[in-house]
Amino acid sequence: MAMEDMVEACADIDAAGYWSVECWGGATFDSCIRFLNEDPWERLRTFRKLLPNSKLQMLLRGQNLLGYRHYEDMVVEKFVEKSAENGMDVFRVFDALNDPRNMAQAMQAVKKTGKHAQGTICYTISPLHTTEGYVKLAGQLLDMGADSIAFKDMAALLKPQPAYDIIRGIKETYGEDTQINVHCHSTTGVTMVTLMKAIEAGADVVDTAISSMSLGPGHNPTESLVEMLEGTEYSTGLDMDRLISIRDHFATIRPKYKAFESATLVDTDIFRSQIPGGMLSNMESQLKAQGAGDRIKEVMEEVPVVKKDAGFPPLVTPSSQIVGTQAVFNVLMGRYKVMTGEFADLMLGYYGECIGERNPEVVELAKAQQKKDVITGRPADLLEPEWEKLETDAAALPGFNGTEEDVLTNAMFPGVAPKFFASRQDGPKNVGKTAEQLQREQDVAAGKAQALSSPITYSVSFDGRQHSVKVEPA
Amino acid sequence: MAMEDMVEACADIDAAGYWSVECWGGATFDSCIRFLNEDPWERLRTFRKLLPNSKLQMLLRGQNLLGYRHYEDMVVEKFVEKSAENGMDVFRVFDALNDPRNMAQAMQAVKKTGKHAQGTICYTISPLHTTEGYVKLAGQLLDMGADSIAFKDMAALLKPQPAYDIIRGIKETYGEDTQINVHCHSTTGVTMVTLMKAIEAGADVVDTAISSMSLGPGHNPTESLVEMLEGTEYSTGLDMDRLISIRDHFATIRPKYKAFESATLVDTDIFRSQIPGGMLSNMESQLKAQGAGDRIKEVMEEVPVVKKDAGFPPLVTPSSQIVGTQAVFNVLMGRYKVMTGEFADLMLGYYGECIGERNPEVVELAKAQQKKDVITGRPADLLEPEWEKLETDAAALPGFNGTEEDVLTNAMFPGVAPKFFASRQDGPKNVGKTAEQLQREQDVAAGKAQALSSPITYSVSFDGRQHSVKVEPA
Repeated sequence: MAMEDMVEACADIDAAGYWSVECWGGATFDSCIRFLNEDPWERLRTFRKLLPNSKLQMLLRGQNLLGYRHYEDMVVEKFVEKSAENGMDVFRVFDALNDPRNMAQAMQAVKKTGKHAQGTICYTISPLHTTEGYVKLAGQLLDMGADSIAFKDMAALLKPQPAYDIIRGIKETYGEDTQINVHCHSTTGVTMVTLMKAIEAGADVVDTAISSMSLGPGHNPTESLVEMLEGTEYSTGLDMDRLISIRDHFATIRPKYKAFESATLVDTDIFRSQIPGGMLSNMESQLKAQGAGDRIKEVMEEVPVVKKDAGFPPLVTPSSQIVGTQAVFNVLMGRYKVMTGEFADLMLGYYGECIGERNPEVVELAKAQQKKDVITGRPADLLEPEWEKLETDAAALPGFNGTEEDVLTNAMFPGVAPKFFASRQDGPKNVGKTAEQLQREQDVAAGKAQALSSPITYSVSFDGRQHSVKVEPA
Repeated sequence: MAMEDMVEACADIDAAGYWSVECWGGATFDSCIRFLNEDPWERLRTFRKLLPNSKLQMLLRGQNLLGYRHYEDMVVEKFVEKSAENGMDVFRVFDALNDPRNMAQAMQAVKKTGKHAQGTICYTISPLHTTEGYVKLAGQLLDMGADSIAFKDMAALLKPQPAYDIIRGIKETYGEDTQINVHCHSTTGVTMVTLMKAIEAGADVVDTAISSMSLGPGHNPTESLVEMLEGTEYSTGLDMDRLISIRDHFATIRPKYKAFESATLVDTDIFRSQIPGGMLSNMESQLKAQGAGDRIKEVMEEVPVVKKDAGFPPLVTPSSQIVGTQAVFNVLMGRYKVMTGEFADLMLGYYGECIGERNPEVVELAKAQQKKDVITGRPADLLEPEWEKLETDAAALPGFNGTEEDVLTNAMFPGVAPKFFASRQDGPKNVGKTAEQLQREQDVAAGKAQALSSPITYSVSFDGRQHSVKVEPA
C-alpha cells in the first residue's frame, strides 16, 4: 500500500491506544522499492513524525535481517542501529528455524540501542513440537535479554487449547510478569478464539487488524476483539471512536488494492498440509512454469516428507520457500535426485539447527552434491566482515545517496535496489486502482456496461455492398 | 440459491454427521416463489429424498408461520402438519417479541406430529434483558413441551461471557441434559468465540455454515469449528473429508451469486445501534425514496428511542421492520406525528407482550389514531376461523394445483403466490450468473478486456471519406 493511502489515518492510529504499531519489515521494505518507488527509510521517518506517541514495531528475521541470507554481525548491528535512529521502537526478532543462535546478535544489537527486544517463537506443529519445548525456547530467549516473548503464528495453526497451555506454561515457569505478545493470522478461521484463550491464559498483547483490513490471510478484527471482552475481567482500553475512524478510512482505500487480495477467506486445509497460503501459490507458479500445474497434490503430499527430513523446521520465510521448492524438485525429478543449493545448505546446517535430527541419508546426498561438510556452529560465524564491500558496492550504483541507509537497502535487496536508486527521483508510484477504474468494473458487474475483450468482426452492408469490419479495443 | 446448485452436495451433507440441516423457512420459501419459480414444497420433498439420513430443520415464526401477520390456530396446525408430512423434522419456533403465547400453538402442533419442537429465544440487549430473564424464558418454553432450547442471535450481539452465563444458568436450573442449540450470525466478528464459550458452558449444538459460504452476515465456518476444539474435551464427530467436498462444491457455486452478497464482512456498529444489517438497508431505501438519504444517522439514533417506547422488543422480522419504519416516520414527520398501522398495533398489544412496559403516552396516541383499545390477551384469540376462506381464495387462482400446500403458499405470501402459480409450469429459473458472465467480469478486472459503458465516437475512413461512427451498449 502506498504511503499516501495511510497518512490520513495516522492521527487516529496514534491516539487509539495501541501497545505498538507494526509498520515496517521485510515485505513492506521490499514492496516499497520493488513496486511503489518509495524509500523505505523515508517511510519510516514519516511514520515517526505522524505517530509521535506510538511505539513503532518491525519484524526482523534475526541474522537474515530483511533478506534471505545470513549477514555478518556488523551488518546486523548497523541495520538495527539505523532502524532505531530512524524511529523504530520494538524489534520483533525471529529465526525461521527457531535457532536462538540466529537471533542472539540482533537481540544484542537492539539491547545496545535501548529499544524493546522482543524474542520471537515461530509456531508450528510436528511430532516433536510440544508445549514443554515452546516453554523451554521462551526461556532461552529470556536468558538472551528479551524484553518480551512473541508467538508468531504465521499460518494460523495455533489452536485455542495449545495457546492456553503454552502461555500458561511460560507464565508459570518464568513469572506472571513475563510479557507475552500473540500474533496469529486468521486464515484458518479459529484464531479469534485462540486470542481469547491466550488472554485467559495471561497474554499481555494480541495482534489485530482494523476490521476493514481484516480476516483471510490477514489478522482478526480489532473492534471485534474489543467487544469480545465485555463482561470478562479483561479490557483493551482502546478508543472505539478512533478505531471507527481508522476503519472508515481503510474501508475507502481497500477496494483500490483489490487486485492484490487473496481469494482465501477461510482455509482449514492448512492444518493438514501445514502449507501457508503464500507458499502454496509459490509452488503452484513453479509447477506451472514447468508445465506441471496438475501435480500440485503430489507436491502437497511431498512437503511433509521434506519437512520431516529437514528436522521439522517451521515453514516461514525463508524455510517455507526452501522446503517448498525442494518438494517441487522431488516430484518433478525424483526424490532428492536434484537438490537446490539452499536445501542442501539447510541439510548441512548452514541455516542453523532445527528441533529434529536431519535424515542422515539426505545429509550424505547433500554433502556429495555441495562438496561441503556439515557444520554445527552458528552459521554467521563463518562469514567474513562484509560492511566495507557493501559500502563499495552501493557507492557504485547510479542514484546512491551516500547514506548508510542506502548501503543497507542494497545489502538487503541487491536484485531490486539498483533499479530503485536509479528511479527514486521520479517519486512514489501508487499501484492501487483509480476511482474511474473501480467504477468501470462495478458497471460491468452490474450489467450496466459491456466488456469488449477481443476483436469482433462484423459483416456490414453499406450502399448495398457487403463489407467486413473488424472492431477491437483501442 | 437455485435448488439445482445444491443437489450435488446433498450426498456429502447427508453423511457428514450434522445434528440437523436447516434448509427451509421464511426467506427460502419467499425466494423460491418470488425469484426462482420453484415450488417450495417440491424443494422440501427433494431435500427429503436427497438427505434420507438427516434431520431437516426449519425456522418458524410461531403464530406468524412464514408470513408477517398472525394466523388463526387452524392454519398454524395445517402448516405444521403439511410441513411434517412433506419431510420436516425439527421446527425451530420463535416469536419476534419472545412472547410465549405466540409460540404455544405452533409448539403444540409440532408435538402432535411427533416431530422435534425447539423453543427459541431471540437474543437482544436492553437495560431489561438479563441472564435471569433469559433463563426464566427458557423455563417457560420447556414447560410448553420444548424438546430443546435454541438461542437465536440474528444480529450477532451475543458476546462470549453473556453466552456462557445464560447457558450455564439454563443448565443449572433445568438440568444438564436440557438440550441447548446456539445460532449466532458472524456479522460482528465475535461469535466464533461465543460458540467456544457456549460449548464450554455446555451447549449441545451450535450452528455453522460450510467455510465457502461462511462469515459476514452469515455464519461461522464449520471446518474451523471442528479444528478449534482439538485438545479440548469436546469434539464434533463431523467427517472432515465430507466437509471438504461440501466446501469445494459451494466454492464453485458462490461466485454465481456474487451480486446478492452483502458487502459487510465485519461490522461492530451493531453493538451500538443494535440494528441488524438487513434492517439498516431497508431504512436506507425508505429514506432514499423520500429524498432524505442523508438523514440515516438521525434515524439510527431514533431507533433506540422507538425500541424503548415499544418495551424493548428484539429486532427481528417483523419487529425490526415495524420499529425501523416508525423511526423513519419519526425523523421525517416528527416523533409519533404519524404512526404506521403496524406500529400502532404493536403499541396496543396486537403483536403480543414485550419485556418492558410500553410508553403510556405513545399508547394513548396509538389508541386515538387507530380508534382501538389496548388488548392484553393472546392476539390470535381475536381471529376468526379462516381456513375455508383461504381455500376459496387459492382455488380462484389460475395455476392452483388443488393441494393444501398451495393453499398455505398463498396464505403465507398472498402478494407473490398468484404470479408464481400462473408461471409455475415454466419450471425453475436460476438467478445466478453464468460461467461466461463471470469470465467477462474477471477479464475486465484483470485489465484483459475493456468495459464499454458509454457511447464512444470513432472516426472511420471508408473509401477515402471520413465518417463519424458512434458505438454504444445495445
